[in-house]
Amino acid sequence: MINEITSKNNQKIKYLCELKTSKGRNKYRQFLCEGKKALEMALKVNKVKEVYSLEVLKLPKDINQYIVSEEIMKKISSSVTPEGIVFVSDFIESKTDYGNKIVYLDGVSDPGNMGTIIRTALAFGYDSVFYSKGSVSPYNEKVVAASKGAIFLIPVIESELHVLKLKYQVIVSALEDNSISLKEVKPNNNFVLVLGNESHGVSKETLELADIVTKIPIQNIDSLNVAVAGAILMHDLMEK
Amino acid sequence: MINEITSKNNQKIKYLCELKTSKGRNKYRQFLCEGKKALEMALKVNKVKEVYSLEVLKLPKDINQYIVSEEIMKKISSSVTPEGIVFVSDFIESKTDYGNKIVYLDGVSDPGNMGTIIRTALAFGYDSVFYSKGSVSPYNEKVVAASKGAIFLIPVIESELHVLKLKYQVIVSALEDNSISLKEVKPNNNFVLVLGNESHGVSKETLELADIVTKIPIQNIDSLNVAVAGAILMHDLMEK
Repeated sequence: MINEITSKNNQKIKYLCELKTSKGRNKYRQFLCEGKKALEMALKVNKVKEVYSLEVLKLPKDINQYIVSEEIMKKISSSVTPEGIVFVSDFIESKTDYGNKIVYLDGVSDPGNMGTIIRTALAFGYDSVFYSKGSVSPYNEKVVAASKGAIFLIPVIESELHVLKLKYQVIVSALEDNSISLKEVKPNNNFVLVLGNESHGVSKETLELADIVTKIPIQNIDSLNVAVAGAILMHDLMEK
Repeated sequence: MINEITSKNNQKIKYLCELKTSKGRNKYRQFLCEGKKALEMALKVNKVKEVYSLEVLKLPKDINQYIVSEEIMKKISSSVTPEGIVFVSDFIESKTDYGNKIVYLDGVSDPGNMGTIIRTALAFGYDSVFYSKGSVSPYNEKVVAASKGAIFLIPVIESELHVLKLKYQVIVSALEDNSISLKEVKPNNNFVLVLGNESHGVSKETLELADIVTKIPIQNIDSLNVAVAGAILMHDLMEK
Protein backbone atom coordinates (compact mmCIF):
# COMPACT_ATOMS: atom_id res chain seq x y z
CA MET A 1 0.00 0.00 0.00
CA ILE A 2 1.21 3.52 -0.79
CA ASN A 3 0.55 6.33 1.69
CA GLU A 4 1.64 9.93 1.90
CA ILE A 5 3.02 11.64 4.98
CA THR A 6 2.98 15.42 4.97
CA SER A 7 3.51 16.35 8.62
CA LYS A 8 6.78 16.11 10.53
CA ASN A 9 4.67 15.37 13.61
CA ASN A 10 3.15 12.24 12.10
CA GLN A 11 3.38 9.25 14.47
CA LYS A 12 5.34 7.25 11.88
CA ILE A 13 8.02 9.94 11.72
CA LYS A 14 8.27 9.98 15.52
CA TYR A 15 8.74 6.21 15.45
CA LEU A 16 11.49 6.50 12.81
CA CYS A 17 13.25 9.11 14.95
CA GLU A 18 13.07 6.64 17.84
CA LEU A 19 14.81 4.08 15.62
CA LYS A 20 17.68 6.53 15.25
CA THR A 21 18.51 5.89 18.91
CA SER A 22 19.93 2.77 20.48
CA LYS A 23 17.04 2.73 22.99
CA GLY A 24 14.41 2.88 20.24
CA ARG A 25 16.11 0.15 18.21
CA ASN A 26 16.17 -2.21 21.17
CA LYS A 27 12.53 -1.37 22.05
CA TYR A 28 11.18 -2.29 18.61
CA ARG A 29 14.00 -4.71 17.67
CA GLN A 30 14.15 -2.88 14.35
CA PHE A 31 16.67 -0.59 12.65
CA LEU A 32 16.87 1.97 9.83
CA CYS A 33 18.73 1.54 6.59
CA GLU A 34 19.18 3.81 3.54
CA GLY A 35 19.66 3.78 -0.20
CA LYS A 36 18.59 1.90 -3.30
CA LYS A 37 21.40 -0.64 -3.25
CA ALA A 38 20.84 -1.65 0.37
CA LEU A 39 17.08 -1.84 -0.29
CA GLU A 40 17.66 -4.25 -3.19
CA MET A 41 19.85 -6.46 -1.01
CA ALA A 42 17.39 -6.42 1.88
CA LEU A 43 14.44 -7.22 -0.44
CA LYS A 44 16.27 -10.29 -1.74
CA VAL A 45 16.34 -11.76 1.75
CA ASN A 46 12.87 -10.50 2.80
CA LYS A 47 14.19 -8.13 5.43
CA VAL A 48 12.22 -4.99 4.48
CA LYS A 49 9.35 -3.98 6.81
CA GLU A 50 8.35 -0.62 5.31
CA VAL A 51 9.85 1.98 2.98
CA TYR A 52 9.94 5.80 3.10
CA SER A 53 10.87 7.57 -0.13
CA LEU A 54 10.54 10.81 -2.06
CA GLU A 55 9.05 9.04 -5.08
CA VAL A 56 6.92 5.94 -5.63
CA LEU A 57 9.05 2.80 -5.91
CA LYS A 58 8.19 -0.54 -7.45
CA LEU A 59 8.00 -2.83 -4.44
CA PRO A 60 6.36 -6.16 -3.50
CA LYS A 61 2.70 -5.50 -2.65
CA ASP A 62 2.90 -6.60 0.99
CA ILE A 63 5.43 -3.86 1.85
CA ASN A 64 3.96 -0.55 3.01
CA GLN A 65 5.37 2.44 1.23
CA TYR A 66 5.26 6.03 2.50
CA ILE A 67 5.92 9.03 0.30
CA VAL A 68 7.52 11.89 2.25
CA SER A 69 8.67 15.45 1.54
CA GLU A 70 12.35 16.41 1.24
CA GLU A 71 12.11 18.08 4.62
CA ILE A 72 10.90 14.88 6.27
CA MET A 73 13.50 12.82 4.37
CA LYS A 74 16.22 15.08 5.80
CA LYS A 75 14.82 14.46 9.29
CA ILE A 76 14.74 10.67 9.04
CA SER A 77 17.92 10.20 7.01
CA SER A 78 21.30 10.01 8.70
CA SER A 79 23.14 10.99 5.54
CA VAL A 80 24.31 14.54 4.75
CA THR A 81 23.13 14.00 1.18
CA PRO A 82 20.13 11.64 1.49
CA GLU A 83 19.58 9.27 -1.42
CA GLY A 84 15.83 9.61 -0.83
CA ILE A 85 15.13 6.07 0.38
CA VAL A 86 14.92 5.03 4.04
CA PHE A 87 13.55 1.68 5.15
CA VAL A 88 12.88 -0.27 8.31
CA SER A 89 14.20 -3.78 8.90
CA ASP A 90 13.72 -6.19 11.79
CA PHE A 91 16.80 -7.15 13.78
CA ILE A 92 18.38 -10.06 11.98
CA GLU A 93 17.93 -13.43 13.63
CA SER A 94 21.17 -15.33 13.74
CA LYS A 95 21.55 -18.85 12.45
CA THR A 96 22.80 -21.47 14.86
CA ASP A 97 25.40 -22.80 12.43
CA TYR A 98 28.17 -20.22 12.35
CA GLY A 99 30.26 -21.83 9.60
CA ASN A 100 34.01 -22.35 9.40
CA LYS A 101 35.50 -18.87 9.04
CA ILE A 102 34.58 -16.20 11.53
CA VAL A 103 35.66 -12.62 12.22
CA TYR A 104 35.46 -11.52 15.87
CA LEU A 105 35.44 -7.83 16.86
CA ASP A 106 36.86 -7.30 20.34
CA GLY A 107 35.76 -3.78 21.27
CA VAL A 108 35.72 -2.19 17.80
CA SER A 109 34.08 1.15 18.59
CA ASP A 110 34.03 3.17 15.38
CA PRO A 111 30.81 2.49 13.44
CA GLY A 112 32.48 3.13 10.07
CA ASN A 113 35.11 0.52 10.89
CA MET A 114 32.58 -2.09 11.98
CA GLY A 115 30.42 -1.55 8.89
CA THR A 116 33.44 -1.78 6.59
CA ILE A 117 34.60 -4.99 8.30
CA ILE A 118 31.14 -6.57 7.85
CA ARG A 119 31.22 -5.61 4.14
CA THR A 120 34.73 -7.03 3.71
CA ALA A 121 33.92 -10.26 5.58
CA LEU A 122 30.97 -10.89 3.25
CA ALA A 123 33.07 -10.09 0.16
CA PHE A 124 35.74 -12.64 1.12
CA GLY A 125 33.27 -15.41 1.94
CA TYR A 126 33.50 -15.42 5.74
CA ASP A 127 30.52 -17.13 7.38
CA SER A 128 29.74 -14.77 10.25
CA VAL A 129 30.92 -11.75 12.22
CA PHE A 130 30.88 -11.87 16.03
CA TYR A 131 31.39 -8.93 18.35
CA SER A 132 32.06 -8.41 22.06
CA LYS A 133 29.76 -6.51 24.43
CA GLY A 134 32.11 -3.50 24.37
CA SER A 135 31.81 -3.03 20.61
CA VAL A 136 29.46 -0.60 18.85
CA SER A 137 26.02 -2.02 17.97
CA PRO A 138 25.80 -3.38 14.40
CA TYR A 139 22.39 -1.67 14.10
CA ASN A 140 23.89 1.80 14.65
CA GLU A 141 22.95 3.72 11.50
CA LYS A 142 26.56 4.47 10.59
CA VAL A 143 27.47 0.77 10.84
CA VAL A 144 24.51 -0.11 8.63
CA ALA A 145 25.48 2.58 6.09
CA ALA A 146 29.15 1.52 5.94
CA SER A 147 28.18 -2.15 5.53
CA LYS A 148 26.54 -1.21 2.18
CA GLY A 149 23.80 -3.80 2.68
CA ALA A 150 26.19 -6.57 3.77
CA ILE A 151 24.47 -6.62 7.19
CA PHE A 152 21.53 -8.40 5.51
CA LEU A 153 23.69 -11.15 4.03
CA ILE A 154 26.05 -12.24 6.81
CA PRO A 155 25.10 -13.10 10.41
CA VAL A 156 26.38 -10.54 12.94
CA ILE A 157 26.20 -11.91 16.47
CA GLU A 158 27.11 -10.72 19.98
CA SER A 159 29.04 -13.35 21.92
CA GLU A 160 32.04 -13.86 24.15
CA LEU A 161 35.18 -15.16 22.49
CA HIS A 162 35.67 -18.15 24.81
CA VAL A 163 32.42 -19.65 23.47
CA LEU A 164 34.11 -20.00 20.07
CA LYS A 165 37.43 -21.27 21.43
CA LEU A 166 36.26 -24.92 21.63
CA LYS A 167 35.58 -25.31 17.94
CA TYR A 168 37.78 -22.67 16.32
CA GLN A 169 41.49 -21.88 16.10
CA VAL A 170 41.83 -18.37 17.56
CA ILE A 171 44.02 -16.06 15.40
CA VAL A 172 44.49 -12.67 17.06
CA SER A 173 45.76 -9.54 15.32
CA ALA A 174 47.91 -7.63 17.82
CA LEU A 175 51.16 -5.68 17.89
CA GLU A 176 52.70 -7.80 20.68
CA ASP A 177 56.40 -8.63 20.96
CA ASN A 178 55.65 -12.31 20.40
CA SER A 179 53.41 -11.69 17.37
CA ILE A 180 54.43 -13.68 14.33
CA SER A 181 54.40 -12.23 10.82
CA LEU A 182 51.24 -12.85 8.79
CA LYS A 183 53.32 -14.82 6.27
CA GLU A 184 54.03 -17.51 8.87
CA VAL A 185 50.40 -18.04 9.90
CA LYS A 186 48.92 -21.42 8.94
CA PRO A 187 45.16 -21.28 9.48
CA ASN A 188 43.14 -24.42 10.23
CA ASN A 189 39.94 -25.12 8.36
CA ASN A 190 37.93 -23.66 11.26
CA PHE A 191 39.29 -20.37 12.56
CA VAL A 192 38.19 -17.13 14.15
CA LEU A 193 40.15 -13.97 13.28
CA VAL A 194 40.09 -11.47 16.17
CA LEU A 195 40.43 -7.70 15.62
CA GLY A 196 40.74 -5.23 18.52
CA ASN A 197 39.79 -1.75 19.60
CA GLU A 198 41.06 1.26 17.60
CA SER A 199 43.09 2.69 20.49
CA HIS A 200 43.79 -0.17 22.88
CA GLY A 201 43.89 -3.22 20.61
CA VAL A 202 42.56 -6.53 21.93
CA SER A 203 41.96 -7.23 25.63
CA LYS A 204 44.26 -9.24 27.90
CA GLU A 205 41.62 -11.97 28.18
CA THR A 206 41.57 -12.25 24.39
CA LEU A 207 45.36 -12.63 24.21
CA GLU A 208 45.11 -15.48 26.71
CA LEU A 209 42.69 -17.30 24.41
CA ALA A 210 44.90 -16.87 21.32
CA ASP A 211 46.34 -19.88 19.48
CA ILE A 212 48.27 -17.52 17.19
CA VAL A 213 49.09 -13.83 17.65
CA THR A 214 49.99 -12.19 14.35
CA LYS A 215 50.81 -8.78 12.92
CA ILE A 216 51.23 -7.29 9.47
CA PRO A 217 54.78 -5.92 9.13
CA ILE A 218 54.63 -2.12 8.71
CA GLN A 219 57.07 0.80 8.87
CA ASN A 220 57.14 4.57 9.63
CA ILE A 221 53.94 4.52 11.71
CA ASP A 222 52.63 2.60 14.77
CA SER A 223 49.57 0.93 13.36
CA LEU A 224 47.08 0.46 10.54
CA ASN A 225 43.40 1.33 10.67
CA VAL A 226 41.55 -1.73 12.05
CA ALA A 227 39.31 -2.14 8.99
CA VAL A 228 42.42 -2.00 6.79
CA ALA A 229 44.40 -4.49 8.89
CA GLY A 230 41.31 -6.70 9.09
CA ALA A 231 40.89 -6.65 5.32
CA ILE A 232 44.51 -7.64 4.65
CA LEU A 233 44.24 -10.47 7.19
CA MET A 234 40.85 -11.68 5.93
CA HIS A 235 42.10 -11.70 2.34
CA ASP A 236 45.38 -13.41 3.16
CA LEU A 237 43.92 -16.12 5.43
CA MET A 238 41.26 -16.99 2.86
CA GLU A 239 43.89 -17.34 0.10
CA LYS A 240 45.99 -19.78 2.12
CA MET B 1 55.99 31.46 24.55
CA ILE B 2 52.91 30.45 26.50
CA ASN B 3 49.76 32.62 26.26
CA GLU B 4 46.24 32.23 27.51
CA ILE B 5 43.10 32.83 25.46
CA THR B 6 39.90 33.33 27.40
CA SER B 7 37.52 34.85 24.86
CA LYS B 8 35.86 33.00 22.02
CA ASN B 9 36.02 36.27 20.07
CA ASN B 10 39.82 36.43 20.21
CA GLN B 11 41.36 37.08 16.79
CA LYS B 12 43.38 33.83 17.02
CA ILE B 13 40.20 31.79 17.48
CA LYS B 14 38.62 33.51 14.48
CA TYR B 15 41.70 32.62 12.45
CA LEU B 16 41.50 28.96 13.57
CA CYS B 17 37.83 28.86 12.56
CA GLU B 18 38.88 30.17 9.14
CA LEU B 19 41.31 27.25 8.90
CA LYS B 20 38.35 24.92 9.30
CA THR B 21 37.19 25.99 5.84
CA SER B 22 38.76 25.18 2.51
CA LYS B 23 38.84 28.91 1.66
CA GLY B 24 40.69 29.77 4.87
CA ARG B 25 43.22 26.98 4.41
CA ASN B 26 44.06 28.13 0.90
CA LYS B 27 44.28 31.78 2.04
CA TYR B 28 46.88 31.08 4.76
CA ARG B 29 48.30 27.91 3.17
CA GLN B 30 47.96 26.31 6.59
CA PHE B 31 45.79 23.59 8.10
CA LEU B 32 44.63 22.29 11.49
CA CYS B 33 45.57 19.02 13.07
CA GLU B 34 44.65 17.36 16.37
CA GLY B 35 45.94 15.03 19.04
CA LYS B 36 49.12 14.15 20.90
CA LYS B 37 50.28 11.45 18.51
CA ALA B 38 49.93 13.66 15.42
CA LEU B 39 51.68 16.50 17.28
CA GLU B 40 54.65 14.24 18.07
CA MET B 41 54.93 13.20 14.43
CA ALA B 42 54.64 16.79 13.16
CA LEU B 43 57.26 18.01 15.68
CA LYS B 44 59.74 15.41 14.43
CA VAL B 45 59.63 16.94 10.96
CA ASN B 46 59.36 20.58 12.14
CA LYS B 47 55.88 21.11 10.80
CA VAL B 48 54.26 22.69 13.87
CA LYS B 49 53.50 26.45 13.71
CA GLU B 50 51.55 26.94 16.95
CA VAL B 51 49.73 24.81 19.48
CA TYR B 52 46.37 25.25 21.29
CA SER B 53 45.78 23.05 24.31
CA LEU B 54 43.88 22.72 27.59
CA GLU B 55 47.08 22.25 29.59
CA VAL B 56 50.69 23.41 29.26
CA LEU B 57 52.71 21.04 27.05
CA LYS B 58 56.47 20.59 26.90
CA LEU B 59 57.33 22.01 23.48
CA PRO B 60 60.38 23.46 21.72
CA LYS B 61 60.78 27.11 22.78
CA ASP B 62 60.23 28.65 19.35
CA ILE B 63 56.68 27.28 19.11
CA ASN B 64 53.93 29.54 20.45
CA GLN B 65 51.57 27.79 22.80
CA TYR B 66 48.06 28.97 23.67
CA ILE B 67 46.12 27.65 26.64
CA VAL B 68 42.37 27.64 25.97
CA SER B 69 39.19 26.74 27.86
CA GLU B 70 37.21 23.57 27.18
CA GLU B 71 34.55 25.70 25.51
CA ILE B 72 37.08 27.16 23.07
CA MET B 73 38.64 23.73 22.49
CA LYS B 74 35.23 22.42 21.49
CA LYS B 75 34.88 25.30 19.03
CA ILE B 76 38.26 24.79 17.33
CA SER B 77 38.32 20.98 17.43
CA SER B 78 36.63 18.93 14.73
CA SER B 79 36.38 15.88 16.95
CA VAL B 80 33.24 14.91 18.88
CA THR B 81 35.48 14.03 21.83
CA PRO B 82 38.42 16.47 21.55
CA GLU B 83 41.77 15.17 22.81
CA GLY B 84 42.57 18.69 23.99
CA ILE B 85 45.36 19.48 21.52
CA VAL B 86 44.92 21.39 18.26
CA PHE B 87 47.83 22.71 16.22
CA VAL B 88 48.51 24.65 13.06
CA SER B 89 50.81 23.40 10.33
CA ASP B 90 51.93 24.97 7.06
CA PHE B 91 50.90 23.24 3.86
CA ILE B 92 53.52 20.63 3.18
CA GLU B 93 55.93 21.43 0.38
CA SER B 94 56.36 18.49 -1.92
CA LYS B 95 59.71 17.07 -2.84
CA THR B 96 60.58 16.91 -6.52
CA ASP B 97 61.75 13.31 -6.31
CA TYR B 98 58.59 11.22 -6.03
CA GLY B 99 60.30 7.85 -5.54
CA ASN B 100 59.49 4.48 -7.11
CA LYS B 101 56.16 3.44 -5.63
CA ILE B 102 53.25 5.82 -5.85
CA VAL B 103 49.55 5.69 -4.97
CA TYR B 104 47.27 7.85 -7.15
CA LEU B 105 43.75 8.84 -6.05
CA ASP B 106 41.45 9.45 -9.01
CA GLY B 107 38.47 11.29 -7.52
CA VAL B 108 38.48 9.76 -4.03
CA SER B 109 35.89 11.96 -2.33
CA ASP B 110 35.42 10.62 1.20
CA PRO B 111 37.88 12.30 3.60
CA GLY B 112 38.06 9.24 5.86
CA ASN B 113 39.04 7.08 2.91
CA MET B 114 41.74 9.50 1.72
CA GLY B 115 43.22 9.82 5.22
CA THR B 116 43.24 6.06 5.71
CA ILE B 117 44.92 5.53 2.33
CA ILE B 118 47.65 8.07 3.20
CA ARG B 119 48.24 6.23 6.52
CA THR B 120 48.38 2.84 4.78
CA ALA B 121 50.70 4.08 2.01
CA LEU B 122 53.16 5.35 4.63
CA ALA B 123 52.93 2.08 6.60
CA PHE B 124 53.82 -0.03 3.55
CA GLY B 125 56.71 2.17 2.45
CA TYR B 126 55.18 3.91 -0.55
CA ASP B 127 57.06 7.06 -1.56
CA SER B 128 54.21 9.48 -2.28
CA VAL B 129 50.47 9.85 -2.71
CA PHE B 130 49.11 11.80 -5.68
CA TYR B 131 45.53 12.92 -6.18
CA SER B 132 43.42 14.27 -9.04
CA LYS B 133 41.70 17.68 -9.02
CA GLY B 134 38.32 16.00 -8.37
CA SER B 135 39.50 14.41 -5.10
CA VAL B 136 38.92 15.82 -1.62
CA SER B 137 41.69 18.14 -0.33
CA PRO B 138 44.30 16.35 1.82
CA TYR B 139 44.14 19.30 4.24
CA ASN B 140 40.45 18.72 4.99
CA GLU B 141 40.34 18.15 8.75
CA LYS B 142 38.78 14.70 8.44
CA VAL B 143 41.53 13.62 6.03
CA VAL B 144 44.17 14.92 8.42
CA ALA B 145 42.50 13.12 11.36
CA ALA B 146 42.17 9.79 9.53
CA SER B 147 45.80 9.97 8.36
CA LYS B 148 46.88 9.77 12.05
CA GLY B 149 49.85 12.04 11.42
CA ALA B 150 50.95 10.23 8.24
CA ILE B 151 50.27 13.41 6.25
CA PHE B 152 53.49 14.85 7.78
CA LEU B 153 55.64 11.93 6.71
CA ILE B 154 54.67 11.18 3.10
CA PRO B 155 54.37 13.73 0.25
CA VAL B 156 50.75 14.23 -0.89
CA ILE B 157 50.64 16.01 -4.25
CA GLU B 158 47.94 17.17 -6.69
CA SER B 159 48.76 16.18 -10.25
CA GLU B 160 47.29 14.68 -13.39
CA LEU B 161 47.94 11.00 -13.98
CA HIS B 162 49.42 11.38 -17.48
CA VAL B 163 52.36 13.30 -15.97
CA LEU B 164 53.38 10.09 -14.18
CA LYS B 165 52.75 7.78 -17.14
CA LEU B 166 56.20 8.45 -18.68
CA LYS B 167 58.19 7.10 -15.76
CA TYR B 168 55.78 4.71 -14.04
CA GLN B 169 53.90 1.54 -14.90
CA VAL B 170 50.22 2.42 -14.38
CA ILE B 171 48.30 -0.25 -12.39
CA VAL B 172 44.61 0.61 -12.14
CA SER B 173 42.16 -0.97 -9.68
CA ALA B 174 38.82 -1.31 -11.47
CA LEU B 175 35.97 -3.80 -11.78
CA GLU B 176 36.17 -3.95 -15.60
CA ASP B 177 35.44 -7.07 -17.66
CA ASN B 178 39.06 -7.18 -18.81
CA SER B 179 40.50 -6.72 -15.29
CA ILE B 180 43.03 -9.38 -14.36
CA SER B 181 43.14 -10.97 -10.92
CA LEU B 182 45.57 -9.38 -8.46
CA LYS B 183 47.49 -12.68 -8.29
CA GLU B 184 48.53 -12.29 -11.94
CA VAL B 185 49.86 -8.75 -11.62
CA LYS B 186 53.62 -8.37 -12.01
CA PRO B 187 54.63 -4.89 -10.89
CA ASN B 188 57.72 -3.16 -12.29
CA ASN B 189 60.18 -1.46 -9.97
CA ASN B 190 58.53 1.90 -10.70
CA PHE B 191 54.74 1.82 -10.54
CA VAL B 192 51.76 3.95 -9.72
CA LEU B 193 48.71 2.23 -8.21
CA VAL B 194 45.48 4.06 -9.16
CA LEU B 195 42.35 3.96 -6.95
CA GLY B 196 39.04 5.47 -8.07
CA ASN B 197 35.97 7.25 -6.75
CA GLU B 198 33.73 5.53 -4.16
CA SER B 199 30.68 5.43 -6.47
CA HIS B 200 31.95 5.70 -10.03
CA GLY B 201 35.40 4.09 -9.86
CA VAL B 202 38.20 5.49 -12.04
CA SER B 203 37.57 7.80 -15.01
CA LYS B 204 37.60 6.72 -18.67
CA GLU B 205 40.77 8.77 -19.25
CA THR B 206 42.47 6.85 -16.44
CA LEU B 207 41.53 3.48 -17.94
CA GLU B 208 43.08 4.62 -21.23
CA LEU B 209 46.38 5.30 -19.44
CA ALA B 210 46.42 1.90 -17.70
CA ASP B 211 49.19 -0.64 -18.35
CA ILE B 212 47.37 -3.15 -16.14
CA VAL B 213 43.74 -3.15 -14.94
CA THR B 214 43.31 -5.39 -11.92
CA LYS B 215 40.66 -6.41 -9.40
CA ILE B 216 40.56 -8.33 -6.16
CA PRO B 217 38.28 -11.37 -6.54
CA ILE B 218 35.25 -10.99 -4.26
CA GLN B 219 31.83 -12.63 -3.85
CA ASN B 220 28.30 -11.84 -2.54
CA ILE B 221 28.68 -8.05 -2.94
CA ASP B 222 29.58 -5.63 -5.76
CA SER B 223 32.64 -3.94 -4.35
CA LEU B 224 35.00 -3.30 -1.46
CA ASN B 225 35.50 0.02 0.30
CA VAL B 226 38.25 1.92 -1.61
CA ALA B 227 40.56 2.23 1.42
CA VAL B 228 40.19 -1.53 1.99
CA ALA B 229 40.81 -2.46 -1.66
CA GLY B 230 43.71 0.01 -1.75
CA ALA B 231 45.27 -1.55 1.35
CA ILE B 232 45.10 -5.10 -0.02
CA LEU B 233 46.63 -3.92 -3.32
CA MET B 234 49.33 -1.82 -1.64
CA HIS B 235 50.30 -4.72 0.63
CA ASP B 236 50.28 -7.31 -2.14
CA LEU B 237 52.23 -5.22 -4.69
CA MET B 238 54.91 -4.40 -2.12
CA GLU B 239 55.34 -8.08 -1.18
CA LYS B 240 55.90 -9.16 -4.79
